[in-house]
Amino acid sequence: MLDLACTGKPIARDFPLSFSLSRLLHVLGDKIPASIAEATQLKARILSGARAECEYRYCTLTIAWTFFYPMAPRLHPVLRQLGIRLPIIQAPMAGTSTPRMAAAVTNAGGLGSLGIGAMTPATARAAILEAQSLTSGPINVNVFVHVAPTSSIDISTRWLDALRPVFREFGAEPPSELKVIYRGFNDDPDVLAMLLEVRPAVVSFHFGLPSPEAVRRLKEQRAVLVASVTSLEEARAAEAAGMDAVVAQGYEAGGHRGIFDPFGRDDQLSTVALVRTLVKRTTLPVIAAGGIMDGQGVRAALELGAIAAQMGTAFVVTDESAADEHHRTAIANGEGTTMTTSISGRPARSMRNRYTELEELEGVEVPHYPLTYDVGKALNAAAKGKGEGGFGAQWSGQAAGLARPMSGAELMRVLEEELGQA
Amino acid sequence: MLDLACTGKPIARDFPLSFSLSRLLHVLGDKIPASIAEATQLKARILSGARAECEYRYCTLTIAWTFFYPMAPRLHPVLRQLGIRLPIIQAPMAGTSTPRMAAAVTNAGGLGSLGIGAMTPATARAAILEAQSLTSGPINVNVFVHVAPTSSIDISTRWLDALRPVFREFGAEPPSELKVIYRGFNDDPDVLAMLLEVRPAVVSFHFGLPSPEAVRRLKEQRAVLVASVTSLEEARAAEAAGMDAVVAQGYEAGGHRGIFDPFGRDDQLSTVALVRTLVKRTTLPVIAAGGIMDGQGVRAALELGAIAAQMGTAFVVTDESAADEHHRTAIANGEGTTMTTSISGRPARSMRNRYTELEELEGVEVPHYPLTYDVGKALNAAAKGKGEGGFGAQWSGQAAGLARPMSGAELMRVLEEELGQA
Repeated sequence: MLDLACTGKPIARDFPLSFSLSRLLHVLGDKIPASIAEATQLKARILSGARAECEYRYCTLTIAWTFFYPMAPRLHPVLRQLGIRLPIIQAPMAGTSTPRMAAAVTNAGGLGSLGIGAMTPATARAAILEAQSLTSGPINVNVFVHVAPTSSIDISTRWLDALRPVFREFGAEPPSELKVIYRGFNDDPDVLAMLLEVRPAVVSFHFGLPSPEAVRRLKEQRAVLVASVTSLEEARAAEAAGMDAVVAQGYEAGGHRGIFDPFGRDDQLSTVALVRTLVKRTTLPVIAAGGIMDGQGVRAALELGAIAAQMGTAFVVTDESAADEHHRTAIANGEGTTMTTSISGRPARSMRNRYTELEELEGVEVPHYPLTYDVGKALNAAAKGKGEGGFGAQWSGQAAGLARPMSGAELMRVLEEELGQA
Repeated sequence: MLDLACTGKPIARDFPLSFSLSRLLHVLGDKIPASIAEATQLKARILSGARAECEYRYCTLTIAWTFFYPMAPRLHPVLRQLGIRLPIIQAPMAGTSTPRMAAAVTNAGGLGSLGIGAMTPATARAAILEAQSLTSGPINVNVFVHVAPTSSIDISTRWLDALRPVFREFGAEPPSELKVIYRGFNDDPDVLAMLLEVRPAVVSFHFGLPSPEAVRRLKEQRAVLVASVTSLEEARAAEAAGMDAVVAQGYEAGGHRGIFDPFGRDDQLSTVALVRTLVKRTTLPVIAAGGIMDGQGVRAALELGAIAAQMGTAFVVTDESAADEHHRTAIANGEGTTMTTSISGRPARSMRNRYTELEELEGVEVPHYPLTYDVGKALNAAAKGKGEGGFGAQWSGQAAGLARPMSGAELMRVLEEELGQA
C-alpha cells in the first residue's frame, strides 16, 4: 500500500479498505471486528495507548491510505497508457461531436471522441487533425462497422411512398431512390489508410468488429482498440478479435444501438445488467455507457466494476456540440426517448418527436441502414426548411432530462467535482 | 467525527473524506496538499516522527475513521426507523417469496418482503403471521393495486382459442372462460382490514396507489408506505398520495412491471436513468430495483442516490424460494429474459421460455390482467403435468445470469461482505 502511495500513481478508487484494515489488524494481532460493539472495544484498546509501537505502525499505514485515497481514483492501465486523468469518455457522436468538443474533454483530463461514421475519409481526416491541433492529449476516433445493405428496390420504394405525404406537408418530394450514404469501415480501405496516417490514440468500433488485418495494422501503431457491445456474446467476439476494451452500451443509451445484428435477438440489456455481467463473465476492461449524466453516475459505473463511463447525451447540450436548437429544446422540455429504426434503418434512441411517432410508417418494412437514413435526412432538411424541427435524428439517452447546458470544459470540471465528492 | 464514531451510529457511506482530511491537517497546522508531490512531502514530514504529539492525534482520528467507514453504510432515516441495518430489500415476489425467505432477510439485517397479490386475505394473513413468528424485525407486505379488467368475453374467447392447440399438446383443454383470479387492493376491503390487524412494518404497492382512506388508516398504525413506480410522473403521484418512499423499478427488473397504466406510453426507463432522475427531480427517498444482483450493484445504487436496493432475482434461486426447478434451471442456463404481456395480461419480465416465444399468440389481443393469468397458470399446470416446465411465469430480471443459489441467510452475508468491500 505504501509502495503504491509513494509512486504517485493512482490508487484504486475501490481500494479494498477492509482488506487493508485486515492487514493492519494482523499487524496489531487482532481480527476484523464482527460487530459495531467489537469494533468499539478494539478501538478503545488501541486508543488506550497500551501498545504504542503497534499503534505507530498502524498510524503510518492509515495516514498513507488516508492521504491518497480521495485524491486518486484508480485508472485502469489501459486508460493510464493514454495519459488521461479521469475515467470519463465523451461518446463519439457522429454528426454531433466536434473537434472542439473532443479537445475540450481531453484537455480537461478525460478522453474526447470524434464519430466519423458519417464523414468521408477527407472530412474525417480534417476533423481529426483539427482536434489533434487543439490538444496534445489522446483522441478517440469512432467508425461504423455495418454490413452493406441488401434491401430490395421494392422495399425502398414502399418506404419512400409512405413518406411522400409527409414530405408534401412541407412542399417537398422524397428522393427518387435510396442511396448507400455511408460505407462500413471494413468496406472502406481509405478510412483505415487515413487512420494509419493521422494515428488517433484510440480507435473505436460501432455495429461490429474490424477485420483481423485492420486490427493488426492499428495495433502496430499502438492504437488502443475499443468495440461497442450490447451482449455477452458480442463482448466475447470483441475479446476474440483482439480489442483492448469494450463499451458496454446499455439499452438506455442514446443514438445508434451498437448491436452487431440489428435483425437478431436483442435482450435489451440495461447498463447495470450488461456492465455487471461483462465485468463478471469476460476479461476485457468494460466502459459503461447509457443513462450516465453526472459524476454520481460515473461513480456508480465504477462501483459496478467499469473502468470508465462513456457519456453522450450530457455532451449533446454543450456549447461545442453540433446538435441543433430543436434537439436541444426537445431535451430541455423532457420529451422522453424511444428506440426507433425508422430514422436510419438501425435501432437508435431518439427524443420522441414527429418522426419517431409517424403513423405513416406503421407496418412498412424498414430498408436497411443506411438506406433509410438517406431519406430520413432529406425529410429533416425539408421540414426544417419550413421551420419544423421535429424530424431530426435527436439521438439522446433515457436520462436526457438531466443534461446540463454549459461548455465542455465546464461540464468536465463539474463532473470531476462530483466524481471526487464520494 | 469521533463523536459519530463513538456513538456506534451509522456514519455516512459517502462520509466526506476530503473534509475530514482537511480538519486533520488543520490540527497538524498543514494544508491539503495540492499535488501528489506536495502530499508526498507532507507525508514524509509526518512520518519522520518529528511531531509525535500531532501524529498521535492524527492517528486517533484516522483510526476512528478507518474503523467505521467500511462497516457502516449510511441508512436513511426511513430505514433506520424500521430498525434494519443494511440497505437491502428482498423484493416481494408474489408466488415466489415465502415467509421463511422474508424472515431470513430481515434476521440478517435487511428488509424481507412478502408479495400477497396472489393470495386470499386468509392465506395472506397466515403467511404474514408466519413470517412475523420467524423474526422480530420488520416485514414488508406488498399488494397489487390494479384496476378490474374490462376485456370483453370475445377477447377472452379468442385468447383461449389461440391457446387450445398448445393445451392439446399436453392432452388438456383450456378453461371455458377466464376468471378474475385476483382483486386489486382498492377493491378488496378485506385485505386492508387484515393488514390493519396484523400490522406489517411496511406496506408496499404495485401497479398503482392506495386510496386516501387506506393511506390514512395504515399511517395511523405507523406503517411505512412504499409505492413502485416506473416514471417521473408516477413518482410524483406517489408523492402526492403520501407515500414514504418509492421503489424505482427499472425496465430491466424481473416480474411484473409496476407501470400504473399498462396501455399508456412506457419510456422503459432503466434503473440508472430512473433512479438518478427521481433522486434529482423528486423529494421522496428512492429504492433502486432492477438488475441488481450483488453488493457491488447495491453500492452502485447508493452512488446514484438511492437509499437502498431492492433485489428479486437474486433471491429467486435461494433455498427458501418457492420457484420451481424449471425456473431455477432456466436461470442457471442463462436463457435470457424478455418483457411479455402474454403470461398474465400485464407486462412482466420472464426468462425466455416456450410460453414467451409462443407464435400461436402473435397478433391476438391480450385480455386484461389478471384474466390472462388465469389461463396462463392452467397452461403451466397442464404442461408441467407432462414434464414440460417451459410454460411457467419464470419472472426474472435481465441480470439473472449472475444469481447465486444458496440460502437466504448466506446470500445476505455475502451481500453484506460485498457491500463493505468498497
